[in-house]
Amino acid sequence: MKRILITLSYDGTAYAGWQRQLNGIAIQQVVEEALEKATGAPVKITGASRTDAGVHALGQAAHFDTESTIPPEKYPFVLNTLLPEDIRVLAGQEVGETFHARFDTKGKRYLYHIHNAPHAGALNRRTHVHVPMPLDEAAMHEAAQSLLGVHDFAAFAAAGGSHKTSVREIYEISCVRRGEAITLSVYGNAFLYNMVRIIAGTLIGIGHGKTEPDCFLKALETGDRLCLGITAPAHGLILDEVFYEA
Amino acid sequence: MKRILITLSYDGTAYAGWQRQLNGIAIQQVVEEALEKATGAPVKITGASRTDAGVHALGQAAHFDTESTIPPEKYPFVLNTLLPEDIRVLAGQEVGETFHARFDTKGKRYLYHIHNAPHAGALNRRTHVHVPMPLDEAAMHEAAQSLLGVHDFAAFAAAGGSHKTSVREIYEISCVRRGEAITLSVYGNAFLYNMVRIIAGTLIGIGHGKTEPDCFLKALETGDRLCLGITAPAHGLILDEVFYEA
Repeated sequence: MKRILITLSYDGTAYAGWQRQLNGIAIQQVVEEALEKATGAPVKITGASRTDAGVHALGQAAHFDTESTIPPEKYPFVLNTLLPEDIRVLAGQEVGETFHARFDTKGKRYLYHIHNAPHAGALNRRTHVHVPMPLDEAAMHEAAQSLLGVHDFAAFAAAGGSHKTSVREIYEISCVRRGEAITLSVYGNAFLYNMVRIIAGTLIGIGHGKTEPDCFLKALETGDRLCLGITAPAHGLILDEVFYEA
Repeated sequence: MKRILITLSYDGTAYAGWQRQLNGIAIQQVVEEALEKATGAPVKITGASRTDAGVHALGQAAHFDTESTIPPEKYPFVLNTLLPEDIRVLAGQEVGETFHARFDTKGKRYLYHIHNAPHAGALNRRTHVHVPMPLDEAAMHEAAQSLLGVHDFAAFAAAGGSHKTSVREIYEISCVRRGEAITLSVYGNAFLYNMVRIIAGTLIGIGHGKTEPDCFLKALETGDRLCLGITAPAHGLILDEVFYEA
């Protein structure tokens, strides 16, 4: 028995999220079915992040156990012939038998893409949330810096999470414009349910000048979700990279 | 009667190209149907470029005549509520009654996107052509410079074009890498049928070291299509901008 870690990219548009569920097709299920075809035995995979419906990934990580003799680095070639084009396996490696893709993460980086232009785009519509009013990305970037470090992010969580503590650490956060696109990048040790989408929604309000930039400080002090803006739509969110101890 | 010029962006994936045809749905047709709903009368539109099936646009231009009293700058708002999400109108303006979106162009810029990585991507699969072998973008850029200026591009045309002359001028051409993406940008006065895709296919061979960089010079001298590489796939091609006299 080997434990294998694979890296995946997917376009979440067509899926009901990462995790198997009753309604809709989950990415986990599609990958497990491809792995069963490849290895000849049922396989259960565990992802680092249970991304929601519509959320994308450039670097999701997942582990599984198998008796298969497929060399670990060949999994991308084997699985990509079996998977639909909107799910791609980018890498495979053997890991120790106690490695866990979710519990062993040391950090994750998410991106949130905003298309800031008078009219929506046709080519970026699946990965960018359209915001027609002009946004001040410098104000967004500056306000976001108040989230750096270790804080109790209780105000930044949607109902439905199941976290023991709401203390998290953000290592890096930035808002950068490139033409009509503004990308929020958030790198932290772990995230509460909908945390990045709540940060993104609040930053859109700040960039538009409708939300006070100090609302982040108030939310951190009070733990009150109502200090913050909307939960931004799922399709702007991308799981960029999952980090493990080297 | 007013003549209106609109700017469009589209994801060409689902369409049989710009121009109305017997098989498949054309972008022209979808836009004409939306215009008929908006203005209450049948409308015929003329595009600057008759993009092929699968080819995208960030800035296609098209004109039409109408008796409608819709203010020209309101066409994006009116049409985008009627069009599918993969076709967006970005701008509208009134032009003179003799203006012609195709015959009056002073230049066009096309982009060709290559995803150069061991495995294909899930999120860029509609707009980037995947090339797994490593490409030398500096060699591609240098070879491309030999196409600058006025030349007879007879060797750079697929059968099926209907051009009086094959003399064209290229104003700017570049190959730039950004991470795993290489973008070819070609700005010229006009283009022969499949010209940019033939340039892209040849540059991929040059970047891979399988094609001699001086093949462009030989092709310009001899007019022989066989000096050049394959016609690269349609889905990497994007009509970026159409230029008119100010």
